[in-house]
Amino acid sequence: MSTCEPCDPLSEPGAFASRCFFSRGPGTFRVPLSLHADNRAKLVAAMHAHAAATMGAAPTPVVGYAGVVLLRGGVARTRDDTDHEELFRQESYFNYLFGVAEPDWWGMIDLLSGRTTLFMPRLDAAYAVWMGEILSCEHYRARYGVDAVRYVDELEAALAETIGPIHVMKGKNSDSGLDLADALPITEKEVAAKAAARREDGVLYEVLAECRAGKSAAELELMRYVSWVSSEAHVAVMRDAKPGMMEYQLEARFLFHIADAGGCRHCAYTCICACGPNAAVLHYGHAGAPNDRRLLATDIGLLDMGAEYHCYASDITCSYPIGGTFTADQRLIFGAVLDAQVAVIGAMRPGISWVEMHTLAWRAVLSALRGGGVVKGDVDEMVAAGLGAVFMPHGLGHLIGLDTHDVGGYLSKDPPRPAARGLSKLRTARVLAAGQVLTVEPGCYFIDALLDPALADAATARFLDEGVLKRFRGFGGVRLEDVVAVTDDGVDNYTLCPRTVEEIEGVMAGGAWPPKADAAPGLRRRWATLDRATGAMVATEL
Amino acid sequence: MSTCEPCDPLSEPGAFASRCFFSRGPGTFRVPLSLHADNRAKLVAAMHAHAAATMGAAPTPVVGYAGVVLLRGGVARTRDDTDHEELFRQESYFNYLFGVAEPDWWGMIDLLSGRTTLFMPRLDAAYAVWMGEILSCEHYRARYGVDAVRYVDELEAALAETIGPIHVMKGKNSDSGLDLADALPITEKEVAAKAAARREDGVLYEVLAECRAGKSAAELELMRYVSWVSSEAHVAVMRDAKPGMMEYQLEARFLFHIADAGGCRHCAYTCICACGPNAAVLHYGHAGAPNDRRLLATDIGLLDMGAEYHCYASDITCSYPIGGTFTADQRLIFGAVLDAQVAVIGAMRPGISWVEMHTLAWRAVLSALRGGGVVKGDVDEMVAAGLGAVFMPHGLGHLIGLDTHDVGGYLSKDPPRPAARGLSKLRTARVLAAGQVLTVEPGCYFIDALLDPALADAATARFLDEGVLKRFRGFGGVRLEDVVAVTDDGVDNYTLCPRTVEEIEGVMAGGAWPPKADAAPGLRRRWATLDRATGAMVATEL
Repeated sequence: MSTCEPCDPLSEPGAFASRCFFSRGPGTFRVPLSLHADNRAKLVAAMHAHAAATMGAAPTPVVGYAGVVLLRGGVARTRDDTDHEELFRQESYFNYLFGVAEPDWWGMIDLLSGRTTLFMPRLDAAYAVWMGEILSCEHYRARYGVDAVRYVDELEAALAETIGPIHVMKGKNSDSGLDLADALPITEKEVAAKAAARREDGVLYEVLAECRAGKSAAELELMRYVSWVSSEAHVAVMRDAKPGMMEYQLEARFLFHIADAGGCRHCAYTCICACGPNAAVLHYGHAGAPNDRRLLATDIGLLDMGAEYHCYASDITCSYPIGGTFTADQRLIFGAVLDAQVAVIGAMRPGISWVEMHTLAWRAVLSALRGGGVVKGDVDEMVAAGLGAVFMPHGLGHLIGLDTHDVGGYLSKDPPRPAARGLSKLRTARVLAAGQVLTVEPGCYFIDALLDPALADAATARFLDEGVLKRFRGFGGVRLEDVVAVTDDGVDNYTLCPRTVEEIEGVMAGGAWPPKADAAPGLRRRWATLDRATGAMVATEL
Repeated sequence: MSTCEPCDPLSEPGAFASRCFFSRGPGTFRVPLSLHADNRAKLVAAMHAHAAATMGAAPTPVVGYAGVVLLRGGVARTRDDTDHEELFRQESYFNYLFGVAEPDWWGMIDLLSGRTTLFMPRLDAAYAVWMGEILSCEHYRARYGVDAVRYVDELEAALAETIGPIHVMKGKNSDSGLDLADALPITEKEVAAKAAARREDGVLYEVLAECRAGKSAAELELMRYVSWVSSEAHVAVMRDAKPGMMEYQLEARFLFHIADAGGCRHCAYTCICACGPNAAVLHYGHAGAPNDRRLLATDIGLLDMGAEYHCYASDITCSYPIGGTFTADQRLIFGAVLDAQVAVIGAMRPGISWVEMHTLAWRAVLSALRGGGVVKGDVDEMVAAGLGAVFMPHGLGHLIGLDTHDVGGYLSKDPPRPAARGLSKLRTARVLAAGQVLTVEPGCYFIDALLDPALADAATARFLDEGVLKRFRGFGGVRLEDVVAVTDDGVDNYTLCPRTVEEIEGVMAGGAWPPKADAAPGLRRRWATLDRATGAMVATEL
């Protein structure tokens, strides 16, 4: 556990550092170092619980429960064959347990004592000239609140002093299909040489991923902060967005706001600034479609942008008319998605299946589209026929935390990925539990590549009217995405963006934000702001 | 060669595209597609020249000069085991020849016909929903101005249709020590299977790197633009910088300006926003030293930041007092570095050795330090004793182009890396030639890790006064870095930043920029601005 000494972060001229917390600077959130110590304690307890469950009354319980957890931190990367170094961002599991900012470290946790040792690279003298003062192991020990810091070249010797299995990561990330055992292999000779026989890769992955799937109180406050920063940045962009601008200029404003006001040097994912027809391209904004369309007054804008702070992510989508006022068709589609958002957020609570929430969203969207004459017939039959996935082809949302698409979606103990059409894209099929944080992101899009097959298929065509749909070709789409935490009896919504038609049109016309009253209590927005004096999030009254 | 059809980029609502040029949007530079066609023609000519030189009068000249050049474009990467995709940036050699924005392409140039074929990934139907409309080979053929576009899975068949060697890249980047043959290996089975016997990796690297080392007229205009954008952004930062801000807030302003005003989505390298003592850390700003110091009125600020446009880089450093007015000591050190800058820029011309320029900079800095009483004795003896590298431990500058530290520093035909102390850090020892673009970045720093050994060594200590140096401990340092192009009779300086004490203090006090008159003609700043109507850089009169 970290020792928290009294400290005044502002007492040293120009410096903003502390042994108690991480913070980017005055006016940004303070992450207590105890967050990582608590994460480590949670992992140790979970490893013991796993051992107890699988080993039962082991003949030698102490040895049975002994062992260490060994993680390799993220490595510094250069681009192609050049010396261009990408700005380093720590590997997520490593950040979860240790909060180390620098590349090329290793970390070890002893499961019997809970003792944590970090291993840092031994830097040569030139480092002091190019990269800064070479700080001692003791400096980093205090900074990261661990029991010891040694050099990476001492890792083999340190492992030799331990007993029991050396637990390392191996498991497939269900969003990427990739394995950390391949991405950051622990096969370097200094580690594997004498410890190979004790290497155990069958346990840690699922236990640690499950730890990350349920957030601690400290993690929840951090996630509240990063979604607050992101919400404020979205509002700043919404105020600036004007016909004639380029999509990338909205991206530039978002990135500026999160960095300048929030100390967020990284965004959580490439900004999607999709206007007009581009709003129907779910992952617009990549290098081949680089937010380079000019905004028209008639466009709907779909802005999917999230900040990252201390490697924790936000993921928020706002949709609004670039001209500042919704047309009737925009209001119809927006209303359908907002209906779904309110319905899902109102229904979420521990014990509810995420798959149910997804179909609830489909139902709400389709009902509203039927009300607006876009589709016709019985909503249950539409869902059964797969029409939901024509208008909303992506999953309702995903776990979020250190990764935007956070780990733990499909662990072996959890419900498997649904096979049904349109549901197989879900990034988790879990039953909700308090402490989980998920995005809720219903959407409604008019995508030629989906509408054309649906019109050609009798099973879906009977709900559609080609003439009406023609009106929406090129419309783009609407997505509303909030970051919500599951509580004991419902959810807390950390996303504090304008969400009703009136809120959006008001803010775009220069109105105040946050509002004087909550026009949509069904969204369960938990109004809060940063207390700049303490660096903590505090609840606010409207 | 590309066919340039008449086009009006603004005629399609919201779209900004053209078959004639790349541009991020209105008000940004237009890169003619012919830039890449010209680069390819230059490579083909250079390959033939190389063949002629090495083969002489070959018995079968046509077959001897036949063959193809095969390059693999940059690949899309995800972070660790996650599905987090980094924003893709094309590999530099591939961008040089083809200007393709998307990942996972290949390119082939036939050396006899000059015919260029690109190979794009065959995308599945889901791509249209997530990433955007799947565009045809013909679309990309026109967009990139090449002779043909096929699918990557047709590459083996395409290679089978060719004759002669298949030239691929293999060679060590002299800045990183890395090899593109490892970073982007051409060993995929579809390529290697039948073509392995024709694979030739001994020629292309040096020929292509040499092509990049000398810039074409079109490349020079592009580099003029990206340095103009970067200069404007530096001025914006300089105006905003105030005591009490955090260093990262300067970074945020720079990145905003280059993106918003210049359409630059990438910066060329991680921003170095080093204030106070941090200015003595040459590569400050990395993840372990993330620009998180608070600016003090007494700080010198050293801001090393450059934009990137169409993968071409700028690299500019400004140094100025955060309080807005130079102290006597700041003026002394700043003046020493400016002296060096003017001396080098005044001396640069074709035929001059870069190593000579480096020692000229040392001499200028040491002379000024002697004038200010910081060092004492004979300047030539100081240089011989290695004192230059105590105050300026880095190289004077480097080739710049598609990479910040551009290729071609030490090709086998060029002078080898100097062995002498302080000169071995030079990134090139070339003799200057027209068309080269280099940074000129003299500096003067007070680095404990260098001063202490210099004071302890009698050979250098005799020039130093410990008491005087004490005054400068914690001062940080000054660097002035310009991007300059070698011309037929001197240089054109593309960096248009305030550089004299009066210019800097004037701009920081709200004065106009560009200035009414050039206060430092010795810097050879070539005043220019973007013509927003044509997307071209035009020379301006002050």
